Amino acid sequence: MVYNMPFTMPGPEIPAESARRPALAVALGDPSGIGPEVLAKALAAGVEADVIVVGDMEVWNIAQRVGGVTLPAVPVHEVPIQDRSWAAGAMSAAAGRAAAAWLTAAVRLALSGAADAVVFAPLNKQAIIRAGFPVRDEYELCASLAGVDDHDEMNVIPHPAGTDASGGLLWVARATSHVPLKDVAALLTVERVLHTIRLAHRTAADAGTLAPRIGVAALNPHAGEGGLVGDEERRIIAPAIAAAASEGLDATGPHPADHVFRLARAGAFDVVVAMYHDQAQIATKLLGFERGVSVGVGYPFVMTTPSHGTAHDIAGRGIADPGPMRQALSVAGRLVRTRRR
Amino acid sequence: MVYNMPFTMPGPEIPAESARRPALAVALGDPSGIGPEVLAKALAAGVEADVIVVGDMEVWNIAQRVGGVTLPAVPVHEVPIQDRSWAAGAMSAAAGRAAAAWLTAAVRLALSGAADAVVFAPLNKQAIIRAGFPVRDEYELCASLAGVDDHDEMNVIPHPAGTDASGGLLWVARATSHVPLKDVAALLTVERVLHTIRLAHRTAADAGTLAPRIGVAALNPHAGEGGLVGDEERRIIAPAIAAAASEGLDATGPHPADHVFRLARAGAFDVVVAMYHDQAQIATKLLGFERGVSVGVGYPFVMTTPSHGTAHDIAGRGIADPGPMRQALSVAGRLVRTRRR
Repeated sequence: MVYNMPFTMPGPEIPAESARRPALAVALGDPSGIGPEVLAKALAAGVEADVIVVGDMEVWNIAQRVGGVTLPAVPVHEVPIQDRSWAAGAMSAAAGRAAAAWLTAAVRLALSGAADAVVFAPLNKQAIIRAGFPVRDEYELCASLAGVDDHDEMNVIPHPAGTDASGGLLWVARATSHVPLKDVAALLTVERVLHTIRLAHRTAADAGTLAPRIGVAALNPHAGEGGLVGDEERRIIAPAIAAAASEGLDATGPHPADHVFRLARAGAFDVVVAMYHDQAQIATKLLGFERGVSVGVGYPFVMTTPSHGTAHDIAGRGIADPGPMRQALSVAGRLVRTRRR
Repeated sequence: MVYNMPFTMPGPEIPAESARRPALAVALGDPSGIGPEVLAKALAAGVEADVIVVGDMEVWNIAQRVGGVTLPAVPVHEVPIQDRSWAAGAMSAAAGRAAAAWLTAAVRLALSGAADAVVFAPLNKQAIIRAGFPVRDEYELCASLAGVDDHDEMNVIPHPAGTDASGGLLWVARATSHVPLKDVAALLTVERVLHTIRLAHRTAADAGTLAPRIGVAALNPHAGEGGLVGDEERRIIAPAIAAAASEGLDATGPHPADHVFRLARAGAFDVVVAMYHDQAQIATKLLGFERGVSVGVGYPFVMTTPSHGTAHDIAGRGIADPGPMRQALSVAGRLVRTRRR
């Protein structure tokens, strides 16, 4: 009978492991910012995962009150804090120290296997640095805890062409990151660009974008104008794209960098692979970075966070949009599910 | 009496020369694209300048017909064309040859003093190259005719923050242009960045923006993070900004490149000075390049053109927007008036 078909048709094999709901260790973020309240609102809206909030009970209770929600069923992994001298809306070493302690505990839960992913509400990197942590930002803190060197972020934003596009998301990856601009060209190799294309493909696909269409940016003005202004397109980027295509990836380019993001905005791509930090970030910040999610890559666990900041100007008022936090939880859950298979 | 006051109040001294209307030599552009028709529409809307159309009478008559206007009073400097084998909507060497011939004639009018400025309707650089001109694009053609080496473009777009902002325009200049990305850092000097800030200030001011607020971009990710990722901010860009400020210019920065355009979009700046081609162009193309105007700098005459292309897909249908062409004529006229003083 027709209504029996779903049970008799052959389908993808799903191992028992992947039937378990993803376990997300979710750090409260900077207690002086909007992090705790957007987390409370996001969890109240429902998440397809088991969540352990990592933080402080008092901060969490305030967050629920500010967010206008009550979440008695959400377990809290408490991390005691001595110095509680922060205030809503003000950057401080005390807030940075608390945020870093909660993030550290969440990372340890993931490293121990008690959680599949680390998700964190927004932090303020200056507060963390002021608290005395010898790191550049929260990613470097996680990397040092996890013992990884080669790590970076991808950004994913609501697709500017609308949510009808595959997955409704636009992913942006970069082949190089926090390096001086003068060193970028020398760091590019066929292998590195190919690695970035593969990684971007896999991450977008794992998070639910079917057969991601990947636009690869050029390095030089006008994509080098056939060698007139730089030869990295011919020597490095084009061969990497050809190799990716030969593996079955839908990668095209090198597209002039001032064109590839226009094409993406118009709906031509689900993923843009940039060659350097600002190439990716100038565009992403104009196209909706603050509504997006950052995904850590290179870590031994799934890691996501909303891309926006602590928004001190509106902290504690309950008006902050929980959308990006929901997206961060959702992307983490989907990445965990897919990678278990 | 009150109505006499304008004649008796002391005002800025305007030499007789500047009372004369600017004379603009306006090349028809690529005859297979929308150039001639947007020019006809733009001139029909009125221009505060004396215009000489440089081109072909038959093309100009068709342009007026397509544009739905008649302009019998506009003088035409006729440049005869042998090969007229172009077709509306198709790129061809014949169209490129005609467009280049008209542009060349317009430049010669300016060089001879018969015109104050060259304005040109959109060209197709591939058509010009296919026609056999040994140049990269129309700017290089003009530069070779004018005998200048050091030339570049600035872009000006409708200000994304709205027309209430000073002048209603956002200007974008760049300290380096068509060079390989790997060479950018080595090309930057305090003098070069300062020169670009001054030039951008003067151009925006000459075109009517009062006391332009200038945001200067950094070169490296996160503006170098205090020297962690590159030192050009400290060594070169900051000293250039300080020198500009000491001259009374309202220049700030270096701002992280992924932030300066967001600030500009929000209305904080009238001018952004970028360090390299794609830094400027990625942002400008996302913020409204095709509605803007390109202004040639480094030429012995004022030169402007709409930034959009020949739009072959809609050529000959009379639906193309003449707004950017009007803006190109208007900016050229204002630059001529101010520079005469």
